Amino acid sequence: MRKNFGVKPWVYPQPVLMIGTYDENGKPNLMNAAWGGQYDANQVMLCLSSHKTTDNIKATGAFTVSFATASTVVPCDYVGIVSAKQEPNKMEKAGFTTVKSEFVNAPIIEQLPLTLECKFLKCNEDGNVIGEIVNVSADESVLTDGNVDYKKLDAIIFDPTAAAYIRLGEKVGNAFKDGAKLK
Amino acid sequence: MRKNFGVKPWVYPQPVLMIGTYDENGKPNLMNAAWGGQYDANQVMLCLSSHKTTDNIKATGAFTVSFATASTVVPCDYVGIVSAKQEPNKMEKAGFTTVKSEFVNAPIIEQLPLTLECKFLKCNEDGNVIGEIVNVSADESVLTDGNVDYKKLDAIIFDPTAAAYIRLGEKVGNAFKDGAKLK
Repeated sequence: MRKNFGVKPWVYPQPVLMIGTYDENGKPNLMNAAWGGQYDANQVMLCLSSHKTTDNIKATGAFTVSFATASTVVPCDYVGIVSAKQEPNKMEKAGFTTVKSEFVNAPIIEQLPLTLECKFLKCNEDGNVIGEIVNVSADESVLTDGNVDYKKLDAIIFDPTAAAYIRLGEKVGNAFKDGAKLK
Repeated sequence: MRKNFGVKPWVYPQPVLMIGTYDENGKPNLMNAAWGGQYDANQVMLCLSSHKTTDNIKATGAFTVSFATASTVVPCDYVGIVSAKQEPNKMEKAGFTTVKSEFVNAPIIEQLPLTLECKFLKCNEDGNVIGEIVNVSADESVLTDGNVDYKKLDAIIFDPTAAAYIRLGEKVGNAFKDGAKLK
Protein backbone atom coordinates (compact mmCIF):
# COMPACT_ATOMS: atom_id res chain seq x y z
CA MET A 1 0.00 0.00 0.00
CA ARG A 2 1.18 3.52 -0.82
CA LYS A 3 0.28 6.77 0.83
CA ASN A 4 -0.45 9.82 -1.35
CA PHE A 5 1.11 13.07 -0.15
CA GLY A 6 -0.19 15.37 -2.91
CA VAL A 7 2.08 17.94 -4.54
CA LYS A 8 5.41 18.11 -2.70
CA PRO A 9 8.89 19.37 -3.73
CA TRP A 10 10.46 16.05 -2.89
CA VAL A 11 13.23 15.29 -5.35
CA TYR A 12 15.23 13.05 -3.01
CA PRO A 13 17.73 13.81 -1.73
CA GLN A 14 18.64 17.40 -2.57
CA PRO A 15 22.11 18.95 -2.54
CA VAL A 16 22.87 21.81 -0.16
CA LEU A 17 24.10 24.34 -2.70
CA MET A 18 26.09 27.22 -1.23
CA ILE A 19 26.04 30.08 -3.72
CA GLY A 20 28.82 32.62 -3.44
CA THR A 21 28.69 36.04 -5.10
CA TYR A 22 30.14 39.55 -4.87
CA ASP A 23 27.84 42.53 -4.65
CA GLU A 24 28.31 45.70 -6.72
CA ASN A 25 30.96 46.87 -4.21
CA GLY A 26 32.90 43.60 -4.23
CA LYS A 27 31.55 42.46 -0.87
CA PRO A 28 31.15 38.67 -0.66
CA ASN A 29 27.79 37.06 0.04
CA LEU A 30 26.65 33.48 0.42
CA MET A 31 23.25 31.82 0.39
CA ASN A 32 21.95 28.30 0.59
CA ALA A 33 19.57 26.61 -1.85
CA ALA A 34 18.42 23.05 -2.42
CA TRP A 35 16.53 23.49 -5.66
CA GLY A 36 18.93 23.03 -8.49
CA GLY A 37 21.17 20.52 -10.16
CA GLN A 38 23.34 19.54 -13.07
CA TYR A 39 21.68 21.07 -16.18
CA ASP A 40 24.13 19.81 -18.80
CA ALA A 41 27.67 18.41 -18.75
CA ASN A 42 29.13 21.87 -18.13
CA GLN A 43 26.12 23.72 -16.71
CA VAL A 44 24.26 24.10 -13.43
CA MET A 45 20.70 25.26 -12.80
CA LEU A 46 19.57 27.14 -9.69
CA CYS A 47 15.94 27.83 -8.80
CA LEU A 48 16.19 30.99 -6.69
CA SER A 49 13.52 33.50 -5.92
CA SER A 50 14.45 37.15 -5.60
CA HIS A 51 17.51 37.45 -3.38
CA LYS A 52 20.57 39.61 -2.95
CA THR A 53 22.31 36.70 -4.68
CA THR A 54 20.28 36.99 -7.88
CA ASP A 55 20.99 40.73 -8.03
CA ASN A 56 24.69 39.99 -7.52
CA ILE A 57 24.80 37.27 -10.20
CA LYS A 58 23.28 39.64 -12.74
CA ALA A 59 25.65 42.47 -11.73
CA THR A 60 28.89 40.45 -11.75
CA GLY A 61 28.12 37.76 -14.33
CA ALA A 62 29.47 35.05 -12.05
CA PHE A 63 28.89 32.87 -9.01
CA THR A 64 30.38 29.89 -7.21
CA VAL A 65 28.54 26.80 -6.00
CA SER A 66 30.05 25.00 -3.03
CA PHE A 67 28.47 22.23 -0.96
CA ALA A 68 27.62 22.29 2.72
CA THR A 69 29.50 19.87 4.96
CA ALA A 70 28.79 18.27 8.31
CA SER A 71 31.25 20.55 10.10
CA THR A 72 29.73 23.72 8.57
CA VAL A 73 26.05 22.85 8.96
CA VAL A 74 25.25 25.66 11.41
CA PRO A 75 26.80 28.54 9.43
CA CYS A 76 25.53 27.06 6.14
CA ASP A 77 21.99 27.01 7.52
CA TYR A 78 22.46 30.51 8.97
CA VAL A 79 23.32 32.11 5.62
CA GLY A 80 20.19 30.50 4.18
CA ILE A 81 17.84 32.07 6.72
CA VAL A 82 19.45 35.51 7.07
CA SER A 83 19.64 37.90 4.12
CA ALA A 84 22.51 40.31 3.53
CA LYS A 85 19.74 42.89 3.02
CA GLN A 86 18.93 42.60 6.76
CA GLU A 87 22.35 41.60 8.15
CA PRO A 88 25.22 43.16 6.18
CA ASN A 89 27.77 41.33 8.36
CA LYS A 90 26.31 37.87 7.81
CA MET A 91 29.58 36.44 6.44
CA GLU A 92 31.52 37.54 9.54
CA LYS A 93 28.78 36.28 11.86
CA ALA A 94 28.86 32.94 10.06
CA GLY A 95 32.65 32.77 10.32
CA PHE A 96 33.16 32.43 6.57
CA THR A 97 36.21 33.92 4.89
CA THR A 98 36.76 34.21 1.16
CA VAL A 99 39.32 34.53 -1.60
CA LYS A 100 38.55 35.49 -5.17
CA SER A 101 38.23 32.69 -7.73
CA GLU A 102 41.09 32.58 -10.23
CA PHE A 103 38.55 32.03 -13.01
CA VAL A 104 35.44 34.12 -12.37
CA ASN A 105 34.45 37.27 -10.48
CA ALA A 106 33.03 35.43 -7.47
CA PRO A 107 34.31 34.34 -4.08
CA ILE A 108 35.64 30.96 -3.00
CA ILE A 109 34.55 30.23 0.57
CA GLU A 110 37.63 28.97 2.39
CA GLN A 111 35.64 26.76 4.78
CA LEU A 112 33.82 24.93 1.93
CA PRO A 113 36.22 22.52 0.25
CA LEU A 114 34.55 21.71 -3.11
CA THR A 115 33.52 24.52 -5.44
CA LEU A 116 32.14 24.93 -8.95
CA GLU A 117 33.30 28.25 -10.40
CA CYS A 118 30.61 29.47 -12.77
CA LYS A 119 30.02 32.09 -15.41
CA PHE A 120 26.42 33.34 -15.45
CA LEU A 121 24.90 32.41 -18.81
CA LYS A 122 21.29 33.55 -18.47
CA CYS A 123 18.05 33.33 -16.63
CA ASN A 124 16.13 30.84 -18.74
CA GLU A 125 12.52 31.06 -19.92
CA ASP A 126 11.31 29.94 -16.48
CA GLY A 127 13.47 32.43 -14.58
CA ASN A 128 16.02 29.89 -13.32
CA VAL A 129 19.69 30.81 -13.21
CA ILE A 130 21.89 28.88 -15.64
CA GLY A 131 25.64 28.92 -15.15
CA GLU A 132 28.55 27.49 -17.08
CA ILE A 133 31.08 25.58 -14.96
CA VAL A 134 34.48 26.94 -15.98
CA ASN A 135 36.47 25.23 -13.24
CA VAL A 136 36.01 22.95 -10.26
CA SER A 137 38.43 23.32 -7.38
CA ALA A 138 38.85 21.28 -4.23
CA ASP A 139 40.87 21.90 -1.12
CA GLU A 140 43.77 19.48 -0.75
CA SER A 141 42.47 18.54 2.69
CA VAL A 142 39.63 16.54 1.04
CA LEU A 143 41.77 14.72 -1.53
CA THR A 144 43.24 11.22 -1.42
CA ASP A 145 45.75 10.44 -4.19
CA GLY A 146 44.64 13.61 -5.95
CA ASN A 147 40.94 12.70 -6.11
CA VAL A 148 38.00 13.91 -4.04
CA ASP A 149 37.49 11.57 -1.08
CA TYR A 150 33.84 11.67 -0.05
CA LYS A 151 34.65 10.73 3.54
CA LYS A 152 37.02 13.66 3.89
CA LEU A 153 34.62 15.99 2.07
CA ASP A 154 31.78 14.93 4.44
CA ALA A 155 29.11 16.69 2.35
CA ILE A 156 25.54 16.80 3.60
CA ILE A 157 22.23 16.50 1.81
CA PHE A 158 18.85 18.11 2.44
CA ASP A 159 15.97 15.74 3.16
CA PRO A 160 12.93 17.71 1.95
CA THR A 161 10.45 15.37 3.64
CA ALA A 162 11.80 16.26 7.11
CA ALA A 163 13.81 19.48 6.55
CA ALA A 164 16.82 17.56 7.87
CA TYR A 165 20.50 17.68 6.97
CA ILE A 166 22.06 14.24 6.64
CA ARG A 167 25.67 13.28 6.00
CA LEU A 168 26.71 10.52 3.62
CA GLY A 169 27.29 7.01 4.93
CA GLU A 170 28.76 3.88 3.37
CA LYS A 171 29.56 3.34 -0.27
CA VAL A 172 27.16 0.68 -1.61
CA GLY A 173 28.07 0.40 -5.27
CA ASN A 174 29.79 1.49 -8.45
CA ALA A 175 27.87 3.29 -11.19
CA PHE A 176 28.03 1.88 -14.73
CA LYS A 177 29.53 -1.33 -13.33
CA ASP A 178 27.29 -3.04 -10.79
CA GLY A 179 24.38 -3.33 -13.21
CA ALA A 180 26.52 -5.32 -15.65
CA LYS A 181 26.08 -8.33 -13.36
CA LEU A 182 22.51 -8.66 -14.67
CA LYS A 183 23.42 -8.50 -18.35
CA MET B 1 45.88 25.06 -1.24
CA ARG B 2 43.24 24.06 -3.76
CA LYS B 3 43.58 21.78 -6.76
CA ASN B 4 41.92 22.80 -10.04
CA PHE B 5 40.09 20.01 -11.86
CA GLY B 6 38.89 22.01 -14.87
CA VAL B 7 35.34 21.61 -16.21
CA LYS B 8 33.58 18.74 -14.42
CA PRO B 9 29.88 17.87 -13.91
CA TRP B 10 30.30 17.81 -10.16
CA VAL B 11 27.17 19.15 -8.51
CA TYR B 12 27.61 17.25 -5.25
CA PRO B 13 25.98 14.95 -4.46
CA GLN B 14 23.53 14.01 -7.21
CA PRO B 15 20.26 12.13 -6.80
CA VAL B 16 19.79 8.77 -8.50
CA LEU B 17 16.62 9.56 -10.43
CA MET B 18 14.73 6.51 -11.67
CA ILE B 19 12.48 7.60 -14.52
CA GLY B 20 9.48 5.41 -15.26
CA THR B 21 7.50 5.62 -18.49
CA TYR B 22 5.19 3.61 -20.72
CA ASP B 23 6.01 3.19 -24.37
CA GLU B 24 3.45 3.59 -27.16
CA ASN B 25 2.17 0.06 -26.47
CA GLY B 26 1.84 0.56 -22.72
CA LYS B 27 4.99 -1.38 -21.91
CA PRO B 28 6.80 -0.03 -18.84
CA ASN B 29 10.38 1.20 -19.03
CA LEU B 30 12.79 2.60 -16.47
CA MET B 31 16.05 4.49 -16.76
CA ASN B 32 18.49 6.08 -14.37
CA ALA B 33 19.75 9.67 -14.48
CA ALA B 34 21.69 11.88 -12.10
CA TRP B 35 21.40 15.20 -13.92
CA GLY B 36 18.27 16.91 -12.76
CA GLY B 37 16.61 18.40 -9.74
CA GLN B 38 13.82 20.45 -8.28
CA TYR B 39 13.01 23.16 -10.87
CA ASP B 40 10.26 24.96 -8.99
CA ALA B 41 8.03 24.12 -6.02
CA ASN B 42 5.91 21.78 -8.16
CA GLN B 43 8.29 21.00 -11.01
CA VAL B 44 11.24 18.76 -11.77
CA MET B 45 13.92 19.11 -14.43
CA LEU B 46 15.66 16.17 -16.12
CA CYS B 47 18.69 16.50 -18.38
CA LEU B 48 18.39 13.43 -20.64
CA SER B 49 19.95 12.83 -23.99
CA SER B 50 18.05 10.88 -26.60
CA HIS B 51 16.62 7.77 -25.00
CA LYS B 52 13.63 5.49 -25.26
CA THR B 53 12.48 7.37 -22.17
CA THR B 54 12.38 10.76 -23.89
CA ASP B 55 10.36 9.26 -26.76
CA ASN B 56 7.98 7.73 -24.22
CA ILE B 57 7.57 10.97 -22.25
CA LYS B 58 6.62 12.81 -25.42
CA ALA B 59 4.22 10.05 -26.50
CA THR B 60 2.41 9.62 -23.16
CA GLY B 61 2.73 13.09 -21.64
CA ALA B 62 3.79 11.65 -18.31
CA PHE B 63 6.56 10.04 -16.27
CA THR B 64 7.40 9.07 -12.73
CA VAL B 65 10.59 9.84 -10.82
CA SER B 66 11.54 7.41 -8.08
CA PHE B 67 14.83 7.23 -6.19
CA ALA B 68 17.31 4.37 -6.10
CA THR B 69 17.85 2.67 -2.76
CA ALA B 70 20.67 0.65 -1.24
CA SER B 71 18.77 -2.63 -1.71
CA THR B 72 18.04 -1.91 -5.39
CA VAL B 73 21.45 -0.57 -6.42
CA VAL B 74 22.26 -3.40 -8.84
CA PRO B 75 18.98 -3.34 -10.83
CA CYS B 76 18.89 0.48 -10.70
CA ASP B 77 22.37 0.63 -12.20
CA TYR B 78 21.44 -2.06 -14.74
CA VAL B 79 18.50 -0.11 -16.19
CA GLY B 80 20.83 2.86 -16.58
CA ILE B 81 23.37 0.97 -18.69
CA VAL B 82 21.01 -1.18 -20.78
CA SER B 83 18.51 0.40 -23.17
CA ALA B 84 15.08 -1.03 -23.91
CA LYS B 85 16.06 -0.54 -27.56
CA GLN B 86 18.66 -3.33 -27.14
CA GLU B 87 17.01 -5.40 -24.38
CA PRO B 88 13.21 -5.35 -24.59
CA ASN B 89 12.98 -7.48 -21.43
CA LYS B 90 15.12 -5.20 -19.27
CA MET B 91 12.41 -4.69 -16.64
CA GLU B 92 12.02 -8.45 -16.14
CA LYS B 93 15.78 -8.98 -16.07
CA ALA B 94 16.06 -6.25 -13.45
CA GLY B 95 13.28 -7.81 -11.39
CA PHE B 96 11.14 -4.66 -11.42
CA THR B 97 7.34 -4.91 -11.41
CA THR B 98 4.95 -2.03 -11.96
CA VAL B 99 1.45 -0.73 -11.37
CA LYS B 100 -0.07 2.26 -13.13
CA SER B 101 -0.05 5.58 -11.28
CA GLU B 102 -3.51 6.70 -10.14
CA PHE B 103 -2.69 10.21 -11.35
CA VAL B 104 -0.71 10.05 -14.59
CA ASN B 105 -0.15 7.66 -17.48
CA ALA B 106 3.13 6.28 -16.16
CA PRO B 107 4.24 3.30 -14.08
CA ILE B 108 4.97 3.15 -10.37
CA ILE B 109 7.87 0.75 -9.75
CA GLU B 110 6.83 -1.48 -6.87
CA GLN B 111 10.40 -1.98 -5.61
CA LEU B 112 11.08 1.80 -5.38
CA PRO B 113 9.24 3.24 -2.38
CA LEU B 114 9.18 7.02 -3.03
CA THR B 115 7.79 8.36 -6.30
CA LEU B 116 6.99 11.72 -7.88
CA GLU B 117 4.13 11.30 -10.35
CA CYS B 118 4.60 13.88 -13.09
CA LYS B 119 2.79 15.39 -16.01
CA PHE B 120 5.13 16.30 -18.89
CA LEU B 121 4.98 20.07 -19.37
CA LYS B 122 7.57 20.68 -22.08
CA CYS B 123 11.12 20.38 -23.21
CA ASN B 124 12.50 23.80 -22.37
CA GLU B 125 14.67 26.07 -24.54
CA ASP B 126 17.73 23.99 -23.66
CA GLY B 127 16.07 20.65 -24.41
CA ASN B 128 15.64 19.57 -20.80
CA VAL B 129 12.46 17.78 -19.74
CA ILE B 130 10.25 19.77 -17.36
CA GLY B 131 7.51 17.94 -15.45
CA GLU B 132 4.80 19.04 -13.08
CA ILE B 133 4.59 17.00 -9.88
CA VAL B 134 0.90 16.12 -9.49
CA ASN B 135 1.34 13.68 -6.61
CA VAL B 136 4.02 12.13 -4.44
CA SER B 137 3.42 8.64 -3.13
CA ALA B 138 5.40 6.54 -0.69
CA ASP B 139 5.14 2.92 0.25
CA GLU B 140 3.95 2.43 3.81
CA SER B 141 7.03 0.31 4.48
CA VAL B 142 9.18 3.48 4.54
CA LEU B 143 6.89 5.56 6.77
CA THR B 144 7.09 6.21 10.50
CA ASP B 145 4.04 7.94 12.00
CA GLY B 146 2.84 8.69 8.48
CA ASN B 147 6.00 10.53 7.39
CA VAL B 148 8.90 9.40 5.21
CA ASP B 149 11.64 7.93 7.39
CA TYR B 150 14.98 8.34 5.66
CA LYS B 151 16.49 5.32 7.39
CA LYS B 152 13.70 3.07 6.12
CA LEU B 153 13.83 4.66 2.66
CA ASP B 154 17.62 4.08 2.50
CA ALA B 155 18.03 6.20 -0.64
CA ILE B 156 21.41 6.42 -2.31
CA ILE B 157 23.23 9.27 -3.98
CA PHE B 158 25.60 9.40 -6.94
CA ASP B 159 29.09 10.72 -6.24
CA PRO B 160 30.14 12.15 -9.61
CA THR B 161 33.80 12.46 -8.60
CA ALA B 162 34.13 8.69 -8.17
CA ALA B 163 31.09 7.24 -10.01
CA ALA B 164 30.10 5.71 -6.68
CA TYR B 165 26.72 5.07 -5.08
CA ILE B 166 26.60 6.04 -1.41
CA ARG B 167 23.80 5.61 1.12
CA LEU B 168 22.83 8.28 3.64
CA GLY B 169 24.31 8.21 7.13
CA GLU B 170 23.53 10.15 10.29
CA LYS B 171 21.31 13.16 10.58
CA VAL B 172 23.50 16.16 11.46
CA GLY B 173 21.06 19.07 11.61
CA ASN B 174 17.72 20.74 11.05
CA ALA B 175 17.21 23.12 8.16
CA PHE B 176 15.82 26.61 8.90
CA LYS B 177 16.55 26.03 12.59
CA ASP B 178 20.20 25.33 13.33
CA GLY B 179 21.38 28.56 11.76
CA ALA B 180 19.20 30.60 14.15
CA LYS B 181 21.81 29.92 16.86
CA LEU B 182 24.07 32.48 15.15
CA LYS B 183 21.47 35.23 14.92
